[in-house]
Amino acid sequence: MHTDLVAALDIGGTKIAGALVDGRGTILVRAQCATPAQEDGDTVMGAVEEVLGRLARSPLWERATALGIGSAGPVDASAGTVSPVNVPGWRDYPLVERARAAAGGLPVELIGDGVAITAAEHWQGAARGHDDALCMVVSTGVGGGLVLGGRLHPGPTGNAGHIGHISVDLDGDACPCGARGCVERIASGPNIARRAVEMGWRPGPDGDTSAAAVAAAARAGDPVALASFELAARALAAGIAATATLVEIDIAVIGGGVAKAGEVLFAPLRRALRDYATLSFVRDLEVVPARMGTDAGLVGAAAAALARQADTAAAVS
Amino acid sequence: MHTDLVAALDIGGTKIAGALVDGRGTILVRAQCATPAQEDGDTVMGAVEEVLGRLARSPLWERATALGIGSAGPVDASAGTVSPVNVPGWRDYPLVERARAAAGGLPVELIGDGVAITAAEHWQGAARGHDDALCMVVSTGVGGGLVLGGRLHPGPTGNAGHIGHISVDLDGDACPCGARGCVERIASGPNIARRAVEMGWRPGPDGDTSAAAVAAAARAGDPVALASFELAARALAAGIAATATLVEIDIAVIGGGVAKAGEVLFAPLRRALRDYATLSFVRDLEVVPARMGTDAGLVGAAAAALARQADTAAAVS
Repeated sequence: MHTDLVAALDIGGTKIAGALVDGRGTILVRAQCATPAQEDGDTVMGAVEEVLGRLARSPLWERATALGIGSAGPVDASAGTVSPVNVPGWRDYPLVERARAAAGGLPVELIGDGVAITAAEHWQGAARGHDDALCMVVSTGVGGGLVLGGRLHPGPTGNAGHIGHISVDLDGDACPCGARGCVERIASGPNIARRAVEMGWRPGPDGDTSAAAVAAAARAGDPVALASFELAARALAAGIAATATLVEIDIAVIGGGVAKAGEVLFAPLRRALRDYATLSFVRDLEVVPARMGTDAGLVGAAAAALARQADTAAAVS
Repeated sequence: MHTDLVAALDIGGTKIAGALVDGRGTILVRAQCATPAQEDGDTVMGAVEEVLGRLARSPLWERATALGIGSAGPVDASAGTVSPVNVPGWRDYPLVERARAAAGGLPVELIGDGVAITAAEHWQGAARGHDDALCMVVSTGVGGGLVLGGRLHPGPTGNAGHIGHISVDLDGDACPCGARGCVERIASGPNIARRAVEMGWRPGPDGDTSAAAVAAAARAGDPVALASFELAARALAAGIAATATLVEIDIAVIGGGVAKAGEVLFAPLRRALRDYATLSFVRDLEVVPARMGTDAGLVGAAAAALARQADTAAAVS
C-alpha cells in the first residue's frame, strides 16, 4: 500500500468516529461524536457532517485522496445506502452520496463494519500474512468479514462475512433476524448472560449479570457459567467450521468484548472446532484472538479506501 | 474464453470419463472406463492412463494445450494430490504429476468434482451470467462449488463449496465425516430414504426404498414421504442461506439425482429459504435446477483448464 492519506469513518449505533489515516495505517487526526441514533435520518447525517467538518479543519485534510466508511449494517455498497438495525432513521439512506458531498467530492468506499474490522486485522493485526481468513467480533452482536485469495471479500453489497446470522441449529430459538438458531442467538454476550441466568446462575453481590460477570464466574469454576460459555463456543465452532468448509480459510480471528473472556471462551472453542472442522482441508484451522483495538473500524475503513485506490490506479495504468 | 482445445477428466468412484473439449465447451472426443475403485492406487492410475491413451489416439490430441481434472474429493490442488473417500487406494496420491506424465507433459489443472460442476453451470448452465453463485449436487452425497466476483472459487486446495459437510444442526445425528448434523447427513438421497423408512413409510410392491421411490410417494401425497423431503429441504435451505449470508450469492443451482424429484424438493426448499435467508442482502436469492447433464464434470474440468490458461496468458502479456 502506498503512503497516501485517506479519511475514514466508523459509524456505529453509539458513536461516529472519524480520522485521517496515512498509508501505513497510522491515525494522524481524530474526531468523534455520539450517534443521535433515535433521531431522524438527516439529524444522524448532521453528526457525520460534524465529524467530517472537524477533520477538514486539519491542515492535512487537503492531502486526503479518498474517504473509507465502515458502517453498522446492513449496508448496500452497490446502491451506496445503509440501513443500520440500531439507527432506525436510516433506511436505504444515501450515505455515500451525502458523505461525498460533505467531504468535498472525495471518492467514497463503503463497507460493513465487520468487513472493516477484517480489513484492519488483515492489514496490521492477527490475520496479517494470511491469504484466507475469517475475522469476527463477538460482542453485543456477532459480526465478521472474509479475506479470500489475499484480498478483502466484501461481496457485491459489502455485507459478506455475516457469520452471526447463519443457522447452526435449524430448530433452535427464534432470532430477531427472523431465522432460528443463528450463531449470534447462541453466542453473543447478552445471550451467554441470559442463558446462564435461565440455567440458574446467580450474580454476585454487585448484581452484575453481564457476559463479563458470567465469564468471571466461569473462570472461578462455576459449572453453569462454564456450560453457557461451552454452548456459545460450540455455536461459534460450528459457524467457523462451516465458513472454512465453504470457502477455505486457515485462520479465524476473534475480537470483541466476549473474546476478552480469554481461555473461558477459546479453550472450549478450540475443542469444539475439532468436532466440527473434520475434513482434511479444514482440520488445521487456527483460532486466535484479535490484535487490533478499538481503532480497528477506522483503520479498516482506511485500508478499504486505500485498496480501492490501488485497484483504480492499476486499472488505469 | 478463446477457442483452444483442452483435455478433461472427470474422476469418480464409479467411472473415469475423459474428453477433448473445445473453447466453446463442445465435447469432440470421448473415452471412458469403470473405476477399479477397490484396487491399489497404481491400478486406478492405470485406468486413468487408459482413458488418456484413448484420447491421445485422436488426431485432435496434438492441439490440446492443457488437461483439466475434476476429481472426487477431498483433493489437494496445492500439493497436486487426491484422497477420494470412495477410492481407498488413493491417499495423497500424486495424481497431477502422474497425469502430466501420462498426458505428454501438458499443464494440469486439478479441482474437486463439486467445483467442476460449478464451473460448467457457470460457463454454460443455470449460473451463466451470475457473478456470485452456489452450485450443488444432491445425490448419494451433497457437494458443491462457488463462483465469487465472476470467477470460480476453488480455494487454495480446490475443495471450497463443500456445503454437504457444514453443520446446520449442531446436536444432530453423527455424520461419517466426524461432525454432527451436516447438510449431507440430512438431505442426501440415502438419508431421505432411510428417514422415510424410520418414520414408517413402506415401499410399494416393487420393494424400492430409494429416494426416487420416496419422491414418487411424496408426489402422490404420502405424508411421511413429504415429511422426509420437507426436512431435507430445510437442511438445504439452512445451508444455502448460510452460504449466501457468508459470501453473498444471488443464485443457488441444484442438480443431482435428488433434484430430479422436482417440486417435491424445490417447493419446500423455496419456502424454507424464506425462513433462513432473512437479511436484506440475501432475501432475493433464487434457487433453480441445474441445466448441465452428466457431462457437467467434464465440461467444468475443461472450463477450469481454459480459465487457468487465460490467466497465465494475461499474466505474461
